[in-house]
Amino acid sequence: MSTSDAGFKAAVQEAEAGYNEGGVPIGACLVAKDGTVLGRGHNMRGSATLHAEISALENSGRLPAKAYEGATMYTSLSPCDMCTGACVMYKVGRVVIGENKTYVGGEEYLKQRGIEVIVFDDEKCKGLMKKFIEEKPAIW
Amino acid sequence: MSTSDAGFKAAVQEAEAGYNEGGVPIGACLVAKDGTVLGRGHNMRGSATLHAEISALENSGRLPAKAYEGATMYTSLSPCDMCTGACVMYKVGRVVIGENKTYVGGEEYLKQRGIEVIVFDDEKCKGLMKKFIEEKPAIW
Repeated sequence: MSTSDAGFKAAVQEAEAGYNEGGVPIGACLVAKDGTVLGRGHNMRGSATLHAEISALENSGRLPAKAYEGATMYTSLSPCDMCTGACVMYKVGRVVIGENKTYVGGEEYLKQRGIEVIVFDDEKCKGLMKKFIEEKPAIW
Repeated sequence: MSTSDAGFKAAVQEAEAGYNEGGVPIGACLVAKDGTVLGRGHNMRGSATLHAEISALENSGRLPAKAYEGATMYTSLSPCDMCTGACVMYKVGRVVIGENKTYVGGEEYLKQRGIEVIVFDDEKCKGLMKKFIEEKPAIW
C-alpha cells in the first residue's frame, strides 16, 4: 500500500477535479478485492450528501452487497462520520487516507468495526486542502 | 412525540411512495428544531447511497451546517450504519424510528454520540416491509 497505488492516484485526481470545479478538493476511489475499480468520485458542490466517498459508492452503480465486501476505499482526506458509516455498512476491508492533518474523522470507529485504516501524510492532498481553505474559508 | 406527528406521517408517506415505485419501502423526513421540514425522501431504486435518510438530507438542498443541528430525523425503519453516520455528522438531535423489528441499525451508536432515539412499533411501517420482503426477497 503506497501513494503510487492506482486507487490512491485516482482519489487524488478526483480531489483535483473537485478543486477545479470550485468545490471542496476531496476525492475517493473504491477498489474491489480483485483490483477492479468499482467507482470514483469527489465532493460535489451543492450536495449535502455527495462527499467524495459517497460519490465513489454512488458511481459504482448498484452492485450486489458482496461486490463491496473487503474492498479498499481510498480517500484523500480522513472520512467524516457519514462516510465512515458508509464504509462500515458496505463492509469495506480497508480505508486508505491521504491525510488527516486538516481533519480527523471516524478512523477510530472504523478500527473498532474491524476495518483496517492506513494514513499517508500526502503533500498533494494537504496542499489542495490548504489552498482551498485559504481561498474559500467560509465554505470549509 | 407520537405517530401522529407531521414529520412521522411524512416519513411513512415516503415509505409508501417507495413501495409504489417498486423499491424498498423506507421513508424519512428531516424536521428542524423550529418545526420546519428541511427535506423528505425515500430509498431510491438503483442507487447505492440514496437510502431514505440520505435522500431526505439530499433533498434539503445544501443548507448551512447550523440548520441541521438539533433537528429530528424521522425514519420508517431503524437506520443503517451509513444513515446513522449521516445523522451524527449533521448533529441531528433526535432520531424517531417507525420500527426496528425488521432490522436494527445504529441505534446504540446514535445514543453513544448523544442523540436521542425514539422507537415506535408502527404497524404500517412493519406491514410495508413485510409485504416488500415477501414480494421481493432477493432485493431485501
